[in-house]
Amino acid sequence: MRHLISPLDFTVEELDKLLNLAGDIEKNPQKYKECCKGKKLATLFYEPSTRTRLSFEAAMLNLGGSVLGFSEASSSSASKGESVSDTIRIISCYADICAMRHPKEGAALVAAKKSGIPVINAGDGGHQHPTQTLTDLMTIRTLKGRLDNITIGLCGDLKFGRTVHSLINALLRYDNVKFVLISPAELKVPGYIIENIKEAGAQYEEVSRLEDVIGGLDLLYMTRVQRERFFNEEDYIRLKDSFILDKKKLKSAKDDMLILHPLPRVNEIAVEVDDDPRAVYFKQAQFGVYVRMALILTLLEVEV
Amino acid sequence: MRHLISPLDFTVEELDKLLNLAGDIEKNPQKYKECCKGKKLATLFYEPSTRTRLSFEAAMLNLGGSVLGFSEASSSSASKGESVSDTIRIISCYADICAMRHPKEGAALVAAKKSGIPVINAGDGGHQHPTQTLTDLMTIRTLKGRLDNITIGLCGDLKFGRTVHSLINALLRYDNVKFVLISPAELKVPGYIIENIKEAGAQYEEVSRLEDVIGGLDLLYMTRVQRERFFNEEDYIRLKDSFILDKKKLKSAKDDMLILHPLPRVNEIAVEVDDDPRAVYFKQAQFGVYVRMALILTLLEVEV
Amino acid sequence: MRHLISPLDFTVEELDKLLNLAGDIEKNPQKYKECCKGKKLATLFYEPSTRTRLSFEAAMLNLGGSVLGFSEASSSSASKGESVSDTIRIISCYADICAMRHPKEGAALVAAKKSGIPVINAGDGGHQHPTQTLTDLMTIRTLKGRLDNITIGLCGDLKFGRTVHSLINALLRYDNVKFVLISPAELKVPGYIIENIKEAGAQYEEVSRLEDVIGGLDLLYMTRVQRERFFNEEDYIRLKDSFILDKKKLKSAKDDMLILHPLPRVNEIAVEVDDDPRAVYFKQAQFGVYVRMALILTLLEVEV
Repeated sequence: MRHLISPLDFTVEELDKLLNLAGDIEKNPQKYKECCKGKKLATLFYEPSTRTRLSFEAAMLNLGGSVLGFSEASSSSASKGESVSDTIRIISCYADICAMRHPKEGAALVAAKKSGIPVINAGDGGHQHPTQTLTDLMTIRTLKGRLDNITIGLCGDLKFGRTVHSLINALLRYDNVKFVLISPAELKVPGYIIENIKEAGAQYEEVSRLEDVIGGLDLLYMTRVQRERFFNEEDYIRLKDSFILDKKKLKSAKDDMLILHPLPRVNEIAVEVDDDPRAVYFKQAQFGVYVRMALILTLLEVEV
Repeated sequence: MRHLISPLDFTVEELDKLLNLAGDIEKNPQKYKECCKGKKLATLFYEPSTRTRLSFEAAMLNLGGSVLGFSEASSSSASKGESVSDTIRIISCYADICAMRHPKEGAALVAAKKSGIPVINAGDGGHQHPTQTLTDLMTIRTLKGRLDNITIGLCGDLKFGRTVHSLINALLRYDNVKFVLISPAELKVPGYIIENIKEAGAQYEEVSRLEDVIGGLDLLYMTRVQRERFFNEEDYIRLKDSFILDKKKLKSAKDDMLILHPLPRVNEIAVEVDDDPRAVYFKQAQFGVYVRMALILTLLEVEV
Repeated sequence: MRHLISPLDFTVEELDKLLNLAGDIEKNPQKYKECCKGKKLATLFYEPSTRTRLSFEAAMLNLGGSVLGFSEASSSSASKGESVSDTIRIISCYADICAMRHPKEGAALVAAKKSGIPVINAGDGGHQHPTQTLTDLMTIRTLKGRLDNITIGLCGDLKFGRTVHSLINALLRYDNVKFVLISPAELKVPGYIIENIKEAGAQYEEVSRLEDVIGGLDLLYMTRVQRERFFNEEDYIRLKDSFILDKKKLKSAKDDMLILHPLPRVNEIAVEVDDDPRAVYFKQAQFGVYVRMALILTLLEVEV
């Protein structure tokens, strides 16, 4: 039995197959609408995440399956002191596959060890969020046509943003990806990620102003800069505008540069950008459903 | 694409068609049981409202569709600062239609502007609750046989009760409806509603004792009088019994007067009234499911 | 119309039929997968209980039906002051059957009196939890082959544990069941249960050390000993280890003694016991789904 705990659990070849399946689902959704009839997905969300949870639920419903679960820990057995290991053994009696979100790093891995059903890590603390990475990869591959030979800018909070770390690690497996890391000094990519980049022999640069580098990017991956991450208010006020994407900054960008964002956004992308054809962050949400459909089919080993 | 934001969004003719459809659903539920197979309803409840949410869910399930969503804001992305406009664009990737309840007036309208799917306003603050009005209209039309030529008493908190305001505005489009407005002085119908009545040339009277007028009513629409709405405790104690319907007061009522209530009730209708054949407030809940089924079919433009 | 409020609502013959049906479901799940197509289960959980709720939901989904409801009181109409009697009348318009969990004793019974649909008591305060008892009985009958002629040890908090009380009362209807009641003095079985045992002419003994009696048991039903139940900390520390089942204590047990637990467990069964073939508490969870499927079919009078 197969689980998805880390974005790197799939080899490049397996990932390719998964993204091909997701692409076919996008083109022929009707073909898949009964594939999981009689199957049940359990959504075990020990912390709330509506977007991710609903994306999984939409995916399973699109496959003709059904869904049960909980959306916050207070309504779970965890509040009675039950361990994740015990919970997953029970859930294995109730469902055919599960998606688990947990505030503690490693929770999904612990669950997978005792589980009788495939476990999908839907986020474990600041650690991993592999289905977001799959979503990002599908968006890039579908709209850009490739995962290699790209210059990608990653902008905002690169220190704590787990989606950024996972995406970098995932793209390092493709040829000739150049990383432009755009962040305030306080929120730079952690050292171990830089080590990964160096080890893979990939090019990268670290800068602190989006406007200086936007012109050279094929992709711009925006993330939120949270005020509370800054050491002092003055720095925040001085720096925050450099990490907000607006029409003015976009003028220097290539005509086919894609703008991605894991969402939710607060104000780091001005609303005026939404109608720009380069803004694909809402399309990303749609790709997220297709990739989760492909993932469920793959882990359940459903023959289509 | 069509939404339902205000009870007056449908013309009288469109409403007639919708209520006919709801009536056919009541008579032939089996005919509709697969109409929405493969379709998904998102229930976006930023504030809890079990009755309304479950009524929508029952409606969609009766049509063979499925449901996803959230039942309170704490488990939604709103808690991460996401705007309603962004949320609805994401939900448009997950579902085919949505019902939204939000504490802020106008939220559903804002959502509808950016939505890729039909939005049904399931209550926006003290503003509108159009599916309650549709439910009231279906109840009256089905059980009374008409929406014109009626004398309707509205009793209780007529100042803050949005269902009362919407129902008055909806009935003003029919001929010869007379309104008997029964409330404490503190909780009278707001001036702009009275203006609407006058403009439409309808008859009305404002009174403060139910027992004085109950004998002349074809319909009695009860609402709750909340203690905290009163300026002082003495007034509340002096007045509250006038706005409680019991068997004694019912003795003066016509044999075919219908008693409606949007529910939940607390004590404004004595439990002893429940078994009276004129009490139709629990039937109203059943009509609410049929009318929501008709609404979903209409907005999704499903051909039956 | 039939409800399930107390574990003794079914006669021994009816129970036998129900357990036979549950057994057939276990063997031929495919046969039942469309039995409740178009039917809806409402899960009305006024207090959270994920395990029980999800077990009911899995049961209904396995039968091809669908589910709606709420998982805690805060998102229900109860917070607006609505009575259980009113709520169930509304829910009767939305669903075909309901499972209700409520913190107040007798709530399910009150609901059943006004309900238009079968009500299953999914726990009412410290009072009853009949589907747990059905689950226990199915586990014993399936894995032991009989419900009579057994010596069952019940260990832990026998004073407050409603599952223990219900199981004793249920087993008293079978021949030659001997009860070994293992608990600290503070947490002994209440007098009225002892009276029931005596009246039925069954054998029992009360002891305070698991190790002294484990060798004679056919079944061991473990429950949690909560620290807060003890009068003083010294007693708790002195006694708690006697009520924890571990490999060492298990050495004295029969080779075919079954270990049951209503779950969730905290530490009263050491994790090292989980892999012992005698440990069947996770299988119990699976039986719980089958028995609930059988119950739904029985109360809805579905012909298979």
